[in-house]
Amino acid sequence: MALFGEVQNMNCLIVGANRGIGFGFVNQLLQNADVATVYATYRDRASAVALLALEQEYPDRLICLPMDTTDETQIAQGISQIRDRSDRLHFVMNCVGMLHDEGVQPEKSLRHINTDQLLHYFQINSIGSVLLAKHLLPLLKHSDRSIFASISAKVGSIGDNQLGGWYGYRASKAALNMLMRNVAIEYRRSSPQTIVVMLHPGTTDTRLSKPFQKNVPPEKLFSVERTVTQLLKVLQSLTSDDSGQFFSWDGSRLPW
Amino acid sequence: MALFGEVQNMNCLIVGANRGIGFGFVNQLLQNADVATVYATYRDRASAVALLALEQEYPDRLICLPMDTTDETQIAQGISQIRDRSDRLHFVMNCVGMLHDEGVQPEKSLRHINTDQLLHYFQINSIGSVLLAKHLLPLLKHSDRSIFASISAKVGSIGDNQLGGWYGYRASKAALNMLMRNVAIEYRRSSPQTIVVMLHPGTTDTRLSKPFQKNVPPEKLFSVERTVTQLLKVLQSLTSDDSGQFFSWDGSRLPW
Repeated sequence: MALFGEVQNMNCLIVGANRGIGFGFVNQLLQNADVATVYATYRDRASAVALLALEQEYPDRLICLPMDTTDETQIAQGISQIRDRSDRLHFVMNCVGMLHDEGVQPEKSLRHINTDQLLHYFQINSIGSVLLAKHLLPLLKHSDRSIFASISAKVGSIGDNQLGGWYGYRASKAALNMLMRNVAIEYRRSSPQTIVVMLHPGTTDTRLSKPFQKNVPPEKLFSVERTVTQLLKVLQSLTSDDSGQFFSWDGSRLPW
Repeated sequence: MALFGEVQNMNCLIVGANRGIGFGFVNQLLQNADVATVYATYRDRASAVALLALEQEYPDRLICLPMDTTDETQIAQGISQIRDRSDRLHFVMNCVGMLHDEGVQPEKSLRHINTDQLLHYFQINSIGSVLLAKHLLPLLKHSDRSIFASISAKVGSIGDNQLGGWYGYRASKAALNMLMRNVAIEYRRSSPQTIVVMLHPGTTDTRLSKPFQKNVPPEKLFSVERTVTQLLKVLQSLTSDDSGQFFSWDGSRLPW
C-alpha cells in the first residue's frame, strides 16, 4: 500500500530526526517500500549518534544533514543539499520542539516570566516551521501530492486551555498554529497539491515529556513507535480540505 | 454612573497612551468624574508632546510615566512609581501594538519572512502584556473590581483567518491571546476580583492602520473617540465569567 495516496518512490524530510518522535519517523519510513529517500536533520552531531549509525545501515536511502532551525542560513544550506539530489519532496515533518532545556523550565506562574526565555520558545517552536515553509516551497510544488506537517501540541490550543501555566510553550504553539495556517493559505495558491497540517502527538515517552510523565496514566503515555504509527494513519487519511487544520493523534480536529 | 460597577475614585493605567487608542482612553477617562487618577505611559518624549501637554492641564489627575514595554526594568520602575502614589488600580489598558514601523512592513508572503522581524512582533505585541501582568498583580489584587485589558486584533484569530499574510502580526496577536488567557487563569486564583480580557477595537483611524485604510469602507473605519466609547461599553458590561475571553468592539465573542 502506498504511504500517501498513489505516490511511490517518495522522498521524505524529517526535521529534528536525531531523537524522539523524529527518529521514530525515520525508522518507520525506512521500513516502507514506497519510500525512496529519507532526509533527516539533526542540530548537533553529539546528540545524533544513533541517527548517524542508522545512516551507515541505509547508505542509499537515508541522508543525514546538519540543520539548526533557528538559523535560516542552515535551513537554506540543508535544503540546497536536498535539491542537489532530489527535485521533489512528498512528505516533510518538522519534529523540532522545546519544552525544557538547559536553564529553561516551563513557567509555572507569572513569577517565572522572562523575556529571553519567551523569545527562545518562539524562535524554536514557532519560527522554525515558517522558515522551513519559505525555503521548501520549490521542493513541494510538483504534480504529486505532498504533505508538510509540524508537531504542535494540544496545550497550544487557546480554547482548550483551562489550567494555565507553561506560558512560553503554550504561546509558541498557538503562534505556530497561526503561522502554519497562514502557510496553508499561501501554499493553496502557489502549491495546491500540498496539504499543510499541525499535529498533536499525544504525550509520548521522549526526552521532552520525561520530567512531566508522573501524572500521566500509563495508557496515555505512548511509545514513540505507537505515536508515529498513529500520526502516519492520520496523515494517510488527509484530504486537501484538511489543509490548515490542527489534528490530534486520533484524527479528531482540535480547537484553536 | 460609575464607570465599572460601583467603584468610585478609580485609578486607571493606560499603557501606550501617547497616541492612537491609548491617547483616546486618557482623554475620555479624564472626562469621567469617577476617575480619580489616570496613569499614562509613553515610550519616548518626542512622540508624547500632546500627552505631556494634557498633563499640564490636569496636573492632579494625569500622571505621565516613561515606559518601554519591551524592557522589564522600565515596567518595574513605572509600576513602582505608581505604587508610591496609589495602593490600587481599577483599570489597566495596554494599547501598545506594532503592525509597521521604521524598516518593518507586515509580511505579504513567505518571501518576506525574517526571524528578527518575527521576534520583534512577539516582543512588542505578545510579551509586553504578560510582563505587565507579572508586575501589576499587587496593584490589581484588592477588594474592588478591577479590569486588565489588552488590545488584540481579529486578524489574530486563528479560526477566523481566511486570507493569510501578515505572518508576524497575526502570530503575535494569537500568542497574546494565549498569554492573556493564561494570565486570566492565574489571576482567577490570586486575584479573583480582576477580569482579564482581550479586545478587538475594529479598524480605527490611527497611525497603525493608516497605510491599510484604502480598502476599508468609511463606516467601518472608526474615529478614535468612537472606538474608545465602544470599548468602554464592552468593558462596562463584563462579568467575572468573561475573564480570559476575546471580545470584539460590538461586545461579541471572537473565535480563537
